[in-house]
Amino acid sequence: MSVIYDRVVLIGLGLIAGSMAHAMRAFGLAGHVAGYARSAETRDTARRIGMCDSIHDSAAEAVAGADLIVLAVPVSAMGEVAAQIAPHLKPGATVTDVGSVKQSVVQSVGPHLPPNVHFIPGHPLAGTEHSGPLSGFASLFQNRWWLLTPPEGTDQQALARLRDLIRGMGANIEDMEPGHHDLVLAVTSHVPHLIAYTMVGVADHLRRVTESEVIQYSAAGFRDFTRIAASDPIMWRDVFMENSEATLDILGRFTEELFVLQRAIRMGDGPQLHEYFTRTRAIRRSIIEAGQDTDAPDFGRSAVQPVATPDG
Amino acid sequence: MSVIYDRVVLIGLGLIAGSMAHAMRAFGLAGHVAGYARSAETRDTARRIGMCDSIHDSAAEAVAGADLIVLAVPVSAMGEVAAQIAPHLKPGATVTDVGSVKQSVVQSVGPHLPPNVHFIPGHPLAGTEHSGPLSGFASLFQNRWWLLTPPEGTDQQALARLRDLIRGMGANIEDMEPGHHDLVLAVTSHVPHLIAYTMVGVADHLRRVTESEVIQYSAAGFRDFTRIAASDPIMWRDVFMENSEATLDILGRFTEELFVLQRAIRMGDGPQLHEYFTRTRAIRRSIIEAGQDTDAPDFGRSAVQPVATPDG
Repeated sequence: MSVIYDRVVLIGLGLIAGSMAHAMRAFGLAGHVAGYARSAETRDTARRIGMCDSIHDSAAEAVAGADLIVLAVPVSAMGEVAAQIAPHLKPGATVTDVGSVKQSVVQSVGPHLPPNVHFIPGHPLAGTEHSGPLSGFASLFQNRWWLLTPPEGTDQQALARLRDLIRGMGANIEDMEPGHHDLVLAVTSHVPHLIAYTMVGVADHLRRVTESEVIQYSAAGFRDFTRIAASDPIMWRDVFMENSEATLDILGRFTEELFVLQRAIRMGDGPQLHEYFTRTRAIRRSIIEAGQDTDAPDFGRSAVQPVATPDG
Repeated sequence: MSVIYDRVVLIGLGLIAGSMAHAMRAFGLAGHVAGYARSAETRDTARRIGMCDSIHDSAAEAVAGADLIVLAVPVSAMGEVAAQIAPHLKPGATVTDVGSVKQSVVQSVGPHLPPNVHFIPGHPLAGTEHSGPLSGFASLFQNRWWLLTPPEGTDQQALARLRDLIRGMGANIEDMEPGHHDLVLAVTSHVPHLIAYTMVGVADHLRRVTESEVIQYSAAGFRDFTRIAASDPIMWRDVFMENSEATLDILGRFTEELFVLQRAIRMGDGPQLHEYFTRTRAIRRSIIEAGQDTDAPDFGRSAVQPVATPDG
């Protein structure tokens, strides 16, 4: 593939930025990839593993001459970073971000940027439960969605170029209005994460009663919750702070629905439960048909390390 | 390995029974495996794939001469099956079950069985989101837990023999009191499943608003919920009907905890959310250390089938 941008800079060097760096290199999409992270330790790690072509000690230095600036910091830090880099941006450059919430990023970043740069907010729907500069890999975006929320009047040439880069990393693109993005993500990601965190917290209280049994017997369903509850705490704090309206809306619907099922259990209403569980099964089928998960039993998990049995 | 039982009969031919049949054959643990299922279609399928050495058209016929009888039907059907087979059991035989709830099985099965057979209830913590006679495989129990709830005074020789069979299929064994089993499973399995069903149901309502977006963007967390919400509806209806007390107890704790987090979101209490999410992360680590899941990012899911991009 051919070079799309001569110089790309990644601000924040975690899972997403690291994966972008690896993917841009693997597919030859950028002439030079520069990087900056606030933490000296992260910068050192990025240097050690050769994540980028250059790692800089200040954001201002890093963005100098860049054609594409990618903000990959927690959502609450986006505004401050934008203010820092704004005076140093090359005219005609494109600024994008990878934040999980879009309305608040538009509000916090937009006002800082000069009118001669193109701001095209984005959100790759890709990730794992790991985080930090060592967690990235080139194939993270393969066949995943990358949502863009270009404001009205966005320069079409700048937009087409950013799309070329994203497609070059293997992702599919869809445009969305920021408010709609935040609602869809509240359903598909934010509330599921909050619920998983909650369930793990409940189990943690009970662990004090039942010792390590909750861990030991986690394969029965609980471990699927712990995976998503292992995600980066700062990122997720910010998601809920910055997308509180849609999250609270969906949470309200969730508790309503949960109370209906809870009542069916209390009243012994088997047919109602059976009807509900049959319906949800069909949704799983749709996801597999849409190519967004594997049909292999148990996600095709391979056998795990044997543990000592207490049963001698 | 050597033959543990000359004749084993499986009553109910779904995921667990099918996996037991495959495992007993693979490891040479049974002289003859007989099978029975209420549905003629299931019996035909089991015959076609050669799941067992013999498939019988009645439970009474199937259990004749068996040294081990495994009840692998939905929990609500256990009592009826026990009543059917009781007059035909060989003196000295062992009866076990694989139900996900133990107190209610003990109450519904126990009274039907004659005093000259050994009843040792059990529960393998193993499964996938698939069900039915085609879903079983020999390695399902490898390094998984198989809980037994032997009543006081259980014949030690009968117990040792059943343990040999279970270990022969690759599982680890732990004994537990039935009530404690039901509480631990409510936390690690039953309530997580109910929550997953609920979240999928909420998304289903919203799907009517947002078309297929919920499916399309499910990789962001939601798909992990749909997997467990795709499990067998009858089995899960029964679990909640038969383990309602512990389920309602844990559900109460869950909603309390959820309301605390919901309030933190509404009040903008970032530190509280951050502290909570940091704590839950540690629990994930414990599960990996206990060998109950893989540390591979995203469970080591392999890349899925490409889908057509709407972005041409």
